[in-house]
Amino acid sequence: MADTVVVPGFRWAGIEAGIRKHPGRKDLALLVADEAATCAGIFTKSDMAAAPVLQSRPVAAGGVARAVLMNAGCANACTGEQGAEAARRMAAALEPHRVTAAETLIASTGVIGAPLKIDQLEAGIPALWAALRPDGIHDFADAIVTTDTHPKVASRTGELFGRKVTVAGVAKGAGMIMPDMATMLGCIVTDARVESDTLLELLRRAAWVSFNATTVDGDTSTNDTLYLLASGVATTPEIRDVEEPAFGILLKLVSEVCLDLAKMIAADGEGATKLVEVRIEEAYSEEEADVIGRKIANSPLVKTAWTAADANWGRIMGAIGVAGFHVDPSKVSLSIDGVDIVEKGVGLGAEAEEEASVQMRKPRFTVLVRLGRGDASRSLYTCDLTADYVKINADYRT
Amino acid sequence: MADTVVVPGFRWAGIEAGIRKHPGRKDLALLVADEAATCAGIFTKSDMAAAPVLQSRPVAAGGVARAVLMNAGCANACTGEQGAEAARRMAAALEPHRVTAAETLIASTGVIGAPLKIDQLEAGIPALWAALRPDGIHDFADAIVTTDTHPKVASRTGELFGRKVTVAGVAKGAGMIMPDMATMLGCIVTDARVESDTLLELLRRAAWVSFNATTVDGDTSTNDTLYLLASGVATTPEIRDVEEPAFGILLKLVSEVCLDLAKMIAADGEGATKLVEVRIEEAYSEEEADVIGRKIANSPLVKTAWTAADANWGRIMGAIGVAGFHVDPSKVSLSIDGVDIVEKGVGLGAEAEEEASVQMRKPRFTVLVRLGRGDASRSLYTCDLTADYVKINADYRT
Repeated sequence: MADTVVVPGFRWAGIEAGIRKHPGRKDLALLVADEAATCAGIFTKSDMAAAPVLQSRPVAAGGVARAVLMNAGCANACTGEQGAEAARRMAAALEPHRVTAAETLIASTGVIGAPLKIDQLEAGIPALWAALRPDGIHDFADAIVTTDTHPKVASRTGELFGRKVTVAGVAKGAGMIMPDMATMLGCIVTDARVESDTLLELLRRAAWVSFNATTVDGDTSTNDTLYLLASGVATTPEIRDVEEPAFGILLKLVSEVCLDLAKMIAADGEGATKLVEVRIEEAYSEEEADVIGRKIANSPLVKTAWTAADANWGRIMGAIGVAGFHVDPSKVSLSIDGVDIVEKGVGLGAEAEEEASVQMRKPRFTVLVRLGRGDASRSLYTCDLTADYVKINADYRT
Repeated sequence: MADTVVVPGFRWAGIEAGIRKHPGRKDLALLVADEAATCAGIFTKSDMAAAPVLQSRPVAAGGVARAVLMNAGCANACTGEQGAEAARRMAAALEPHRVTAAETLIASTGVIGAPLKIDQLEAGIPALWAALRPDGIHDFADAIVTTDTHPKVASRTGELFGRKVTVAGVAKGAGMIMPDMATMLGCIVTDARVESDTLLELLRRAAWVSFNATTVDGDTSTNDTLYLLASGVATTPEIRDVEEPAFGILLKLVSEVCLDLAKMIAADGEGATKLVEVRIEEAYSEEEADVIGRKIANSPLVKTAWTAADANWGRIMGAIGVAGFHVDPSKVSLSIDGVDIVEKGVGLGAEAEEEASVQMRKPRFTVLVRLGRGDASRSLYTCDLTADYVKINADYRT
């Protein structure tokens, strides 16, 4: 577990409220801003967006929030009008503590289709509120994990207008991860002061190079949610424009926190043993690089070869070939952590593959694809596909 | 193994020529038409189309062929100019037997990127030719399998213009199967007489409801090839138009043979234990039904739930939600082999899921999705995802 981090203006808590099927694990998480914070949220694009997503979209769009309330153990997705009512009650659950539903962002994760135990959730609020602490971020992170093997926390500090600012975040992931906008659940905070529209643009840009560059299995969740709250307690001048140098500085800090968390999610993919960066260079456009990279990163044949440390570049070429961009094979080169294995469409032989295979036994390596079509590039982060992925997902509900 | 079938006008053979890495299995297959037959071929749409595909496309387009020569053990894909030369020599290998390269269709399957042992292949031709027999279809089928657990042969007989006609076919598949046009390799023959353009249209329609409705893992091969040859030895009048009743009769026979083979491929998916029909009804269009069905059939989370006989309909709803058609969840209903589990977006409860789970323990079941958007429908055929899939693909080259 990382060192404890405190972001001025925020308190965190995580407790067990009895929402999960099996007892013994925290399942209810709360973040509270001492004063109203500016906020931004990005959400799944799924048509089947879960009730907490539908509940929180307008709240996040308002740009101001006091609290983020999350639960694990139930996604409250595909639950119809009953689920919508449960989400409304969840958002209103902090009203005894003078935080209104209109200032409360919520998110849920867990099994789809099961009803949320909203009575237990409400009953847990007094203990949850009492547990709030400035250094409680790890309790929060603990309470939102599902099949993750460990809670995920990251932070950075930097200087803005001569003052120290802090960015910290939590996330959970592991399975059903190909966020179209966000990880399954993530929450980032900073004590910098940022106008809310600018904060949303900052979050979008940070997510593009981090959570949106991550894929475990190509499935996008009904619940993907990423929040960013800015307390302004650092009393730095308000950032109002993407052209300001301060925007760039803060974007870098937030992007680094998001990328740390995104890599943790990819490395902790269900059953995963390896974190793989798929880097596409010499693409015609960043979008093309993104699609081709995803095609590689989501191919079960490519992912199982990684498991075996097999430099089976034919499977990678196969994935590139069906991405839909009329790639010319005779211009494509591949390398794995610096070892060239394909030069302009032709394999460099068994010795090169052996060397590459040695690199692939490491817990982290990069597959670099040069397309010979232009100068755009993109990095995606993913993991291998193991027999344990199947076991975890076949047994998940039992 | 099915009963032996003979299609007048054709002879088949399969022998071991030493092309595979490990000895002991047949790896070279030949089909010869006694006289020139009309032919049609459909091929992978991959940009990385293998050398045998590039070699055979113009031959198939010519509409006339005498022979089909296939090998297992090497795909001859991503092999550059050296691979193109090997494919040219393969097509010309029957010239000593007075079959020219211009009348020889070829196909290869196996590892991508490795050079084809063309000398061994050529050296095997005399024995292969000597082994040709009218009832040799099972030897042919045997010689083209790779990770398949059994060779795949299917046949039908019917009546055309008052005469008996026969349709028979072989295919191989198992992994890297989401043919965009064909299975990895397939070859169908009939003794009916069909004009070549009409034959191509017939093959396309038969493939759409069979091989193109099959997906094991969402990967499309560099080598997908499906041939159809018509000897005309039944001396039926030539079919020249898709509007003729005879076209419909023959299309039904060929489609049934193709669907038999396609289902064998899906059921024999690497590591698969279950053949699953994903049937989409009430779609706006057949294309929409196809995309949504594929999204479900290729989702690792859905496939692993099938392995566990878990009626986890939330994962199916999740897959539908990200297919990109703005589906309204409150109109979607799901059932599994007749057991309703979701009615207009809301789960019908644990008892219904238990009943569905019983159905899912069978080796074959159907997932029916009614979208409530229109009256188009489509069936796709796929399999579950097991830990064995990973083992097979992680160990394939070792």
